[in-house]
Amino acid sequence: MDYSTSLLRLTFLALGAALVLIVARSAFRLPLAIDAPAASFLHGAGGCTRFSPWACRSPRTEKSTPRRPSHESDVPRHPLDPLTVTEVSRARDLLRAHPPFASAPSALAVHALALDEPDKPAVRRWRKGAHALPPRRAVAVVRFQGESHVLALDLTAGKVAPLPVPASGYPTMTMDEQTALCAAPFSDPAFNATIRRRGVRLDDVACLPISLGWYGPEEDGGRRLIKSQCYSTEGTANFYMRPIEGLTVLVDMDTGKVVHISDRGAGIPIPAAKNTDYRGAANDDDDGTDRFGYQTVRAPSMEPAPEGPGFQIEDGHTVRWAGWEFHLKADARAGLIVSRATVQDPATGARREVIYKGMASELFVPYMDPTEAWYFKTYMDAGEYGFGLQAMPLVPLNDCPRHARYMDGVFVAADGRPYVRENMICVFERYAGDIAWRHSESPITGMDIRESRPKVTLVARMAASVANYDYIVDWEFQTDGLIRIKVGLSGILMVKGTPYSHMNQVRRNEEMHGTLLSENVIGVIHDHYVTFRLDMDVDGADNSFVRVDMARQDTAPGESPRRSYLKATRHVASTEKDARVRLKLYEPAEFHVINPTKKTRVGNPVGYKVVPAGTAGSLLDPEDPPQKRGAFTNNQVKRLLYTEFKAVFDTTIR
Amino acid sequence: MDYSTSLLRLTFLALGAALVLIVARSAFRLPLAIDAPAASFLHGAGGCTRFSPWACRSPRTEKSTPRRPSHESDVPRHPLDPLTVTEVSRARDLLRAHPPFASAPSALAVHALALDEPDKPAVRRWRKGAHALPPRRAVAVVRFQGESHVLALDLTAGKVAPLPVPASGYPTMTMDEQTALCAAPFSDPAFNATIRRRGVRLDDVACLPISLGWYGPEEDGGRRLIKSQCYSTEGTANFYMRPIEGLTVLVDMDTGKVVHISDRGAGIPIPAAKNTDYRGAANDDDDGTDRFGYQTVRAPSMEPAPEGPGFQIEDGHTVRWAGWEFHLKADARAGLIVSRATVQDPATGARREVIYKGMASELFVPYMDPTEAWYFKTYMDAGEYGFGLQAMPLVPLNDCPRHARYMDGVFVAADGRPYVRENMICVFERYAGDIAWRHSESPITGMDIRESRPKVTLVARMAASVANYDYIVDWEFQTDGLIRIKVGLSGILMVKGTPYSHMNQVRRNEEMHGTLLSENVIGVIHDHYVTFRLDMDVDGADNSFVRVDMARQDTAPGESPRRSYLKATRHVASTEKDARVRLKLYEPAEFHVINPTKKTRVGNPVGYKVVPAGTAGSLLDPEDPPQKRGAFTNNQVKRLLYTEFKAVFDTTIR
Repeated sequence: MDYSTSLLRLTFLALGAALVLIVARSAFRLPLAIDAPAASFLHGAGGCTRFSPWACRSPRTEKSTPRRPSHESDVPRHPLDPLTVTEVSRARDLLRAHPPFASAPSALAVHALALDEPDKPAVRRWRKGAHALPPRRAVAVVRFQGESHVLALDLTAGKVAPLPVPASGYPTMTMDEQTALCAAPFSDPAFNATIRRRGVRLDDVACLPISLGWYGPEEDGGRRLIKSQCYSTEGTANFYMRPIEGLTVLVDMDTGKVVHISDRGAGIPIPAAKNTDYRGAANDDDDGTDRFGYQTVRAPSMEPAPEGPGFQIEDGHTVRWAGWEFHLKADARAGLIVSRATVQDPATGARREVIYKGMASELFVPYMDPTEAWYFKTYMDAGEYGFGLQAMPLVPLNDCPRHARYMDGVFVAADGRPYVRENMICVFERYAGDIAWRHSESPITGMDIRESRPKVTLVARMAASVANYDYIVDWEFQTDGLIRIKVGLSGILMVKGTPYSHMNQVRRNEEMHGTLLSENVIGVIHDHYVTFRLDMDVDGADNSFVRVDMARQDTAPGESPRRSYLKATRHVASTEKDARVRLKLYEPAEFHVINPTKKTRVGNPVGYKVVPAGTAGSLLDPEDPPQKRGAFTNNQVKRLLYTEFKAVFDTTIR
Repeated sequence: MDYSTSLLRLTFLALGAALVLIVARSAFRLPLAIDAPAASFLHGAGGCTRFSPWACRSPRTEKSTPRRPSHESDVPRHPLDPLTVTEVSRARDLLRAHPPFASAPSALAVHALALDEPDKPAVRRWRKGAHALPPRRAVAVVRFQGESHVLALDLTAGKVAPLPVPASGYPTMTMDEQTALCAAPFSDPAFNATIRRRGVRLDDVACLPISLGWYGPEEDGGRRLIKSQCYSTEGTANFYMRPIEGLTVLVDMDTGKVVHISDRGAGIPIPAAKNTDYRGAANDDDDGTDRFGYQTVRAPSMEPAPEGPGFQIEDGHTVRWAGWEFHLKADARAGLIVSRATVQDPATGARREVIYKGMASELFVPYMDPTEAWYFKTYMDAGEYGFGLQAMPLVPLNDCPRHARYMDGVFVAADGRPYVRENMICVFERYAGDIAWRHSESPITGMDIRESRPKVTLVARMAASVANYDYIVDWEFQTDGLIRIKVGLSGILMVKGTPYSHMNQVRRNEEMHGTLLSENVIGVIHDHYVTFRLDMDVDGADNSFVRVDMARQDTAPGESPRRSYLKATRHVASTEKDARVRLKLYEPAEFHVINPTKKTRVGNPVGYKVVPAGTAGSLLDPEDPPQKRGAFTNNQVKRLLYTEFKAVFDTTIR
């Protein structure tokens, strides 16, 4: 996976294939059909491509007869199990019968509907077989006749009760309205005239809904608005490379009407379609290279031990491996959620708690171009688009190795009906050729010791395609008790059209807000900030956050030949605000989540170390970020001491 | 691999197996024989352990009949090929016949002898088949009758010429003297008396030579000194866990005599041997768990495509894979050296240069304890101990996957004779279940696109065991042109004895310089700084180092609804000093190595991006680091613009 975090990382890879995405050489034409598939059953792609010929030549039964599990008969078996197909239908019936909506149920749009998880103490107490499931409840976020509503649903008792609606912000968009918004601009004659003036056929235009940030009430006007960015699909499936630059269409999401058209890019050509198609089938050559000229690599295969993979998935959601046990589920907003991760104590055999719940809480992608057509591009991919809603079926063999097991997501369409996102999560045992631990003795000791253990881990993976970008999220569990959360960034760059086709046309010191990547194509500077919420329960729920500062300590005169050393100072956070950290490379610190009530054998608090690999350097004006959007969540933060790490590319928990 | 960089990372892993190394539970007795094996042929360990039963049950021929290549007939085939066995013998003859040494050749100690690489232009011009090899030359660093000498050897002409000797510092220790130093303290009656007073049998004591830093001429006195730290080997192979604390023996390396004994730890017990043995054979259980109680994980196997692995090694050192070509060799000081890495341009088919030479240049491990027995522990693992000298044979299946190919090192003993370090480097094609690139289209566009390519890379690996620590160095080549250098830290913690067996005995605010890990065992705060030298040759030798600063730019009033954005500013370094960087998370920057004379199609300089994953926050007093040691090198820095990144744990080049 490529952990690129900002555009400039791509700009000088003259030798790399990253640019292939932009300057690829084959040309294809793909009709663009706009319809509303969100409420239908989506099926996984076939997995056998030329990129994994090893597996293609030894096809396994699981590949030729893809699993089509019926979720109609699913029942919840764990307090944290997501809503089943049956429960979603039940919730829909309750909502449509609820008095405010019963008058016009077809006008009801369900923006979020998910399990309202039982209180943490109840979940921690619950034991399979010994206890019945707690009552099944759900939280719904809906729009009805221009108003937002948040509702608590008791699925057992059949009751619906309103909850407070946040004072600002809007619900996550539904897939249905995102789809409808693609078509909205075309209903406006002025828009169509603009397109024609550019010499583009309307049939060749595709528009995407782009959340518009929050720049004060004068722009918002109390309406739920969106901005459309349009592209030419002529000659390529990769329309992202063909922006109709400078054209921004402001649309009212509730009425579907165009509110305003900003058209400042009349002189900017649409970048050429040539060499932009990235699809394997469009680029096959038979000479051992692909159409880009790169050698085709035959992937080795990851084959399990003869006894089979070492993990089990019980009751659809409980994963067990090498002493680990955790609950895993798909979520429309967060993507995937890991809950109740416990590990077996090797000495006592007892289960020890590690994490109560962990998930991506937001992805913030601000572009660094203040001009009219770009200033608002400051996406919140989870809260606005739904990180899980955008997670498409994984491609067997290429997205996950052979012998991976897949898990589906059950989501909710705008009309309240359930649908299944197949193969949304995969779970596999991973051997990457790495070493878990080793030690050799130097011959100077005369001891002939050559000890080495290969590293085997368990990975739970999803991949969300939020328009052009694909985020690959891995939760990796190690045999030594560590958990590693990785976010890989893939997909296609979001680019800007420009009149320039060569740098010799650009005035010295001209502000381009990015790099000229190809003729008429600028890659705009931006970042991807991924925020995780980690509710740690180390040996129980009573945890503290400890910052260990490592600071230079000068020695006293005559104390030591050394003049200085690093001294560790512990600080236990007393409030959540006190737990906020600002990482500094030259003022190093470590971060521990400890349980102050439990001690190790020698009297230290038991704990876990959190290693953020990067931080969101908040370089924007503090008043600038579009913080008033995407505020609704179906995964409400509950009473616990937690900290969110804004990880640029890789959050590692040790 | 575990990228732990400082001790504290280990201290709170109450749930992790890292502590198992310290609190393991089985007890074994291993006789400690001290002899001098450095000049003998060292053989690789057998590879089949319970940690890789998959491969064990399908043993391959290569495992049951391990390769024993004869290097007697090796001849150099590339200008950068390391000295062969024959050439080392030839160099030995020349040195022993050289006038200053001929009088007493047996008094000559060879501390370094390696290829004196031809000048870069000659190497870059050279083409196999078209040109003869440049003259073969070597550089030797020797000690003779208490003096250091540096010599240039012309192996073809049979000439030896002296080179300037650095004004300060000493050569890398030889393996032979490291071995001899293990025994040196025992020749001193006062030392033996001290040991007996502690109630320890002399037969149970092992001492290791510890470089003493440089704290001024008053300590050094112009002598080549070393400090011995001793351990009890009674009851465990893991003597590192049984320090005889507070006992430091200062030894003159040239005379082998004890100069001074510092004994301040009489009241500190030697930590118990119980549960410290880490060896798999000592900890086998048959119940699916190991003796530590951890479940045994059956490792999957990485199996190549039916066509076989996709890489070739030609002439013993030239590796080819997926368009990449590079020269790979073992080096006594640097460990492994990658040279002349080029990649095929997919458009033109031409080879394009990327790196002329890359290698670890130093590993600095300072401990943060200023007390008498610890202040000097500030190791330079490459310059003082020899990163390659300490690289033991890799363990097949556990250190490297099946189907890896192995490369030997030819090194030089103190008496000038060549010896072979077998299986020191492995090369393998890696599929880790990761995704090289993917893109799915969201259903809102109506395009049914599910593209994904598995990630396959090529890894060249070595593992150096510098006493207790094992460093795993991977050079990973990607199909998209990126190179990733990873350093994994493994092995055994270096610990300090203490009278305390529980934290309730420790006074509040008492300075422990670390954490109580087990009864009578403190893990002392320290860091591992790894420095790489990367001589980039992007599209030729004429490269520049560019720093791209990303700084907040406020917008002008009325310019934009945005108040600020990140603006990139390029700065081309004019001198090496100007290229020094001090990374700051909140003042982000990117680092590019460009070729200002070569342009991309749209007119940008071609370039490569260097991503240092961490920096050596120089928190020591600038006058404090022991900079006057380990100064000799057989890999002399030549005329080029380069930069060294002090990477804490992972240097990634893109």
